Amino acid sequence: MPPVPLTLEGWNILHQMFRIRWPEWNEQAPAPRRRVIDEAVTALKSMEHAANGRTGLASLLGHKGDLMLIHFRDSMDALNEAELAVAQLKLAPFLEPTTSYLSVVELGLYSGSGQLYGSLKEKGIAPNTPEWKEQVEAYLAQARKTMETRLRPDIPARRYVCFYPMDKKRGEEKNWYDAPFAERQRMMADHGFIGRGYAGRVTQIISGSIGFDDWEWGVDLFADDPVVFKKLVYEMRFDEASALYGLFGPFYMGLQFRAEELGALLDGRTPGFG
Amino acid sequence: MPPVPLTLEGWNILHQMFRIRWPEWNEQAPAPRRRVIDEAVTALKSMEHAANGRTGLASLLGHKGDLMLIHFRDSMDALNEAELAVAQLKLAPFLEPTTSYLSVVELGLYSGSGQLYGSLKEKGIAPNTPEWKEQVEAYLAQARKTMETRLRPDIPARRYVCFYPMDKKRGEEKNWYDAPFAERQRMMADHGFIGRGYAGRVTQIISGSIGFDDWEWGVDLFADDPVVFKKLVYEMRFDEASALYGLFGPFYMGLQFRAEELGALLDGRTPGFG
Amino acid sequence: MPPVPLTLEGWNILHQMFRIRWPEWNEQAPAPRRRVIDEAVTALKSMEHAANGRTGLASLLGHKGDLMLIHFRDSMDALNEAELAVAQLKLAPFLEPTTSYLSVVELGLYSGSGQLYGSLKEKGIAPNTPEWKEQVEAYLAQARKTMETRLRPDIPARRYVCFYPMDKKRGEEKNWYDAPFAERQRMMADHGFIGRGYAGRVTQIISGSIGFDDWEWGVDLFADDPVVFKKLVYEMRFDEASALYGLFGPFYMGLQFRAEELGALLDGRTPGFG
Amino acid sequence: MPPVPLTLEGWNILHQMFRIRWPEWNEQAPAPRRRVIDEAVTALKSMEHAANGRTGLASLLGHKGDLMLIHFRDSMDALNEAELAVAQLKLAPFLEPTTSYLSVVELGLYSGSGQLYGSLKEKGIAPNTPEWKEQVEAYLAQARKTMETRLRPDIPARRYVCFYPMDKKRGEEKNWYDAPFAERQRMMADHGFIGRGYAGRVTQIISGSIGFDDWEWGVDLFADDPVVFKKLVYEMRFDEASALYGLFGPFYMGLQFRAEELGALLDGRTPGFG
Amino acid sequence: MPPVPLTLEGWNILHQMFRIRWPEWNEQAPAPRRRVIDEAVTALKSMEHAANGRTGLASLLGHKGDLMLIHFRDSMDALNEAELAVAQLKLAPFLEPTTSYLSVVELGLYSGSGQLYGSLKEKGIAPNTPEWKEQVEAYLAQARKTMETRLRPDIPARRYVCFYPMDKKRGEEKNWYDAPFAERQRMMADHGFIGRGYAGRVTQIISGSIGFDDWEWGVDLFADDPVVFKKLVYEMRFDEASALYGLFGPFYMGLQFRAEELGALLDGRTPGFG
Repeated sequence: MPPVPLTLEGWNILHQMFRIRWPEWNEQAPAPRRRVIDEAVTALKSMEHAANGRTGLASLLGHKGDLMLIHFRDSMDALNEAELAVAQLKLAPFLEPTTSYLSVVELGLYSGSGQLYGSLKEKGIAPNTPEWKEQVEAYLAQARKTMETRLRPDIPARRYVCFYPMDKKRGEEKNWYDAPFAERQRMMADHGFIGRGYAGRVTQIISGSIGFDDWEWGVDLFADDPVVFKKLVYEMRFDEASALYGLFGPFYMGLQFRAEELGALLDGRTPGFG
Repeated sequence: MPPVPLTLEGWNILHQMFRIRWPEWNEQAPAPRRRVIDEAVTALKSMEHAANGRTGLASLLGHKGDLMLIHFRDSMDALNEAELAVAQLKLAPFLEPTTSYLSVVELGLYSGSGQLYGSLKEKGIAPNTPEWKEQVEAYLAQARKTMETRLRPDIPARRYVCFYPMDKKRGEEKNWYDAPFAERQRMMADHGFIGRGYAGRVTQIISGSIGFDDWEWGVDLFADDPVVFKKLVYEMRFDEASALYGLFGPFYMGLQFRAEELGALLDGRTPGFG
Repeated sequence: MPPVPLTLEGWNILHQMFRIRWPEWNEQAPAPRRRVIDEAVTALKSMEHAANGRTGLASLLGHKGDLMLIHFRDSMDALNEAELAVAQLKLAPFLEPTTSYLSVVELGLYSGSGQLYGSLKEKGIAPNTPEWKEQVEAYLAQARKTMETRLRPDIPARRYVCFYPMDKKRGEEKNWYDAPFAERQRMMADHGFIGRGYAGRVTQIISGSIGFDDWEWGVDLFADDPVVFKKLVYEMRFDEASALYGLFGPFYMGLQFRAEELGALLDGRTPGFG
Repeated sequence: MPPVPLTLEGWNILHQMFRIRWPEWNEQAPAPRRRVIDEAVTALKSMEHAANGRTGLASLLGHKGDLMLIHFRDSMDALNEAELAVAQLKLAPFLEPTTSYLSVVELGLYSGSGQLYGSLKEKGIAPNTPEWKEQVEAYLAQARKTMETRLRPDIPARRYVCFYPMDKKRGEEKNWYDAPFAERQRMMADHGFIGRGYAGRVTQIISGSIGFDDWEWGVDLFADDPVVFKKLVYEMRFDEASALYGLFGPFYMGLQFRAEELGALLDGRTPGFG
Repeated sequence: MPPVPLTLEGWNILHQMFRIRWPEWNEQAPAPRRRVIDEAVTALKSMEHAANGRTGLASLLGHKGDLMLIHFRDSMDALNEAELAVAQLKLAPFLEPTTSYLSVVELGLYSGSGQLYGSLKEKGIAPNTPEWKEQVEAYLAQARKTMETRLRPDIPARRYVCFYPMDKKRGEEKNWYDAPFAERQRMMADHGFIGRGYAGRVTQIISGSIGFDDWEWGVDLFADDPVVFKKLVYEMRFDEASALYGLFGPFYMGLQFRAEELGALLDGRTPGFG
């Protein structure tokens, strides 16, 4: 059984984190300030439900940033277009980019891959032969249809958002990429089981960033109650996939809001969620 | 026995560390300087005992910052409101945010969870069944009542404050999250035993930050004699939970003061504690 | 058998990453702005196919940079000349260098070295004797001729580029440099086998940076579909050479464009690839 | 035997490292420049031998800083007062704080603790009983008297100063805090033995920073010949306590000078030691 | 046999890395620009062959810096004088210090120490006795005479320079400082053997920085062909001393030039080596 689980890819994602340069911003006179806000609101409203994707906004907590934009787009070119458009806003000089994260929505098909690889083996079809590749492609094409809405989801309409990147450990003894496929499949199934215990309370979007950014995956969690983030991530920290193999990057925690509420944030008030 | 200890959550906490931009500040003329101080004192006094929380102030030692604000609030939205209010102060252009920490007051119930899980097992109630969840919720609701003042405490009125974040190690051999529940329960009990030896000399507030910030927990210690911080943390470094599993982040050490003393700090004098 | 595989070296390479200082740039009046663009386009066009090398341009995604220049040159002096020329452009004040990477195109000859060392041993020629050195030099001279176009390649004309540096691990147990030559040769062959499965979809240029920069190798991947980067790097992460010994640095992902499209990028639009 | 060695604490210490903003400073006209120097010299002279402590000055080598101030004070409040006073100097806008270190003079009493704990055990006095605590306090009170001058020393009048922070390793296998008391006592004795071989050539002040700053200890070495620092630290790197358990932070190397020589440094000349 | 190999020390060394602030520099009018260059050339020419040392210049490749100064001096005070002199140049406001490295030329005498320690042992002279120390000092005095030119060398007149700092690993299992003297002596001899294979092609200057800077040693390599750096460092990475115990810091690669060519660099052209 080949060690690589099949994956499906959807939206290209760019998270952009910005600090607001409050001193410079607060020196602006009311009229130009209004014009800057109006232009930004108009631009971001049209991005929220663009033809080629979605853009979400969040007011971040702490010094890591004040504003997070989450761009979902149908191509890397469209992501580049989105970030260049933001950089041309009259608001841009008052935004200091602190960090960003580039990834693509990913559905990992450990369970399906395991079954498919097993069935192909039973049929005596050797890996990477033309027939094998054909059947894998057929499986993926079918899965892509079934999972289309999970590959190109809306940004979940929940107040709180938590983003963090993560890796699977490649230690000298504990090495995810050296573990047998069946072991990894079992651990991912256990991991998913915990997640399903939070169904209804947390909406999760996993994206892959191998080859695109400095960690292997990005995780976006959305909830109506932020304490649920802690409960979920803490519980998962004890499952085998995370306890032994998970490595976690910086955590970003924010309050989602609609583009039309951007003026409230820029006036120094917590924006409503509408 | 499920591996996850139960926890209770209280205040949402944001620590904000700032450097004072002394050169720019000291160029201000006396009158505007007075207005800036007055506005900041008024705002921070009202935050010290707000309806929805508490705010503490400390004069930090060393280059990591000059001023630390500790916000306790009843929601993440209220924390966001607090940080946005600080950013709109006339004083804000003279404050350089250096870092921050986001967490929520957490009471870890290792001992209680152990007893409850044991008793549920004896009664033949399987984990995660509706009955099991009901009894866990009942236990938590009862504990929440009993511990209300520890979940939403005042900021201890002691001169010195020490803040640091920490993790439990997930090494290839020494891995807290891979240790059996009973072992962790025993080690946490030993750890707590040392803490109780400092009762009266140190007041401690533990907060959880899994899912919120880059370490797993935040620790705030408050004392009348700062050497006690060293004694306590050094002694704990030898207990099993810390010696084998504790990972410690940066330490912040400050002198608490009342908002009305902020003018003294801004005039370059160590503020009194009143 | 000596543990060191033979290598051939070609172009000297400098990757330069820049952020565009959008606020300052967007304050420029149309006429000087045009002059700055014209000068930069002229200079970079002449670098694209210079007598002594090649220069490629890419619009980077995310906060790590907006513009990446990839200089291939026939000497380190010529690389220095290229970076100094860029620094003298009227555009330079609007470019903030964020990072760079210095390396030299490297063809690792594990398989050929293995055969050669084996054959020399059979002939009873001891390592590092004059005769041994002579035969090694003869082999290298012949290989250099055969591989000339791979040593001094054009920059592949594919829209997407992915750059990252990497090391081979020297852990306490898993240590590439302590592994036997034959083991390394076998693992590199397996590694290359995966790469060949992506022939046609990905063009790869490997460069060596031991002695020149902070990682041991640089990897440039070029493709028409960026998801292929993820597929390739993910699949390779499971091969033994990568799973046990690969350490990966930051990833840079960009859209290649021709110098004549630089004006589009500077006008805030995703540049076309022509 | 409890695992925690007894310690005595003396001066509170703050190391402050600054870069001199040479370009801005050298733009100053002679007269204001003179006034700035005069004010700083006066202030620092009075700090050198203050009623509540000592302040030392050093011209640092390399980019980490140009000026290091070492404040010894009788309280954390006095340290805060000292740093605030420095920040109010007319010189402050020309000083860029690069880093700092907060600690407290510490005499580790491994040998004495070992004997005391042993003797208390022989007498059948159980650890942490009131009688035990009483005898420990009596021992400490006596030791404090004997060692008063080592707890509140002058800053040694030697030209060269070397400062670095350090930790004891808490690795998965080599863990200082998991080693038996008797083992640690033996290793510290061996470590001290090497130090005594440098008596007369190096004066050493150890400070503890657990709970105060990011490493566990600070080490200040003072000598008339800087090569002795290398000899001492190199030799110690082979003793068991350092070889197996020492982790070393950044090293700062400077030339001590008297406050009255500050004008020489600010004029761009190596200040004499007078 | 004591575990510490004897060493001899020569020149004190300070490497200074600077970025040129091209935008500010290129705004200067021709006449003041010329005066700035003239002053810097005059000062650096006199430093190149100073009475108390040598100063070398290099044009660095990549974003780590544009200019590297290598100061060899006969005392730490003279190094401090050199860096202060550079900081007072009219050119200094156009130079941004990025990093630096402080060390002292070191000749490690593993082989000689081994023989001496062995011979003293045979004679029954116990380590650290007065007689032992006397014979060690006599040996060192003799060695110092023999190696004087290697202790105070000129800066090698080769076009390319490569500088990097390094450590010997002190891992939990692989620990250089825990290895027996004879083992270390053997590994260093093997290491030196590889180096001698590059005699004529590379000139190497090793400096010790224990107690002075953040790594244990600095390595300067000089060559007429930069690819030789890669060949040498790659080959050494397979020797036991490096493969198992070497830890390498950042690499700096530059083109040496004479002070009189500084104007070319400041005019944006690769300076010749003359």
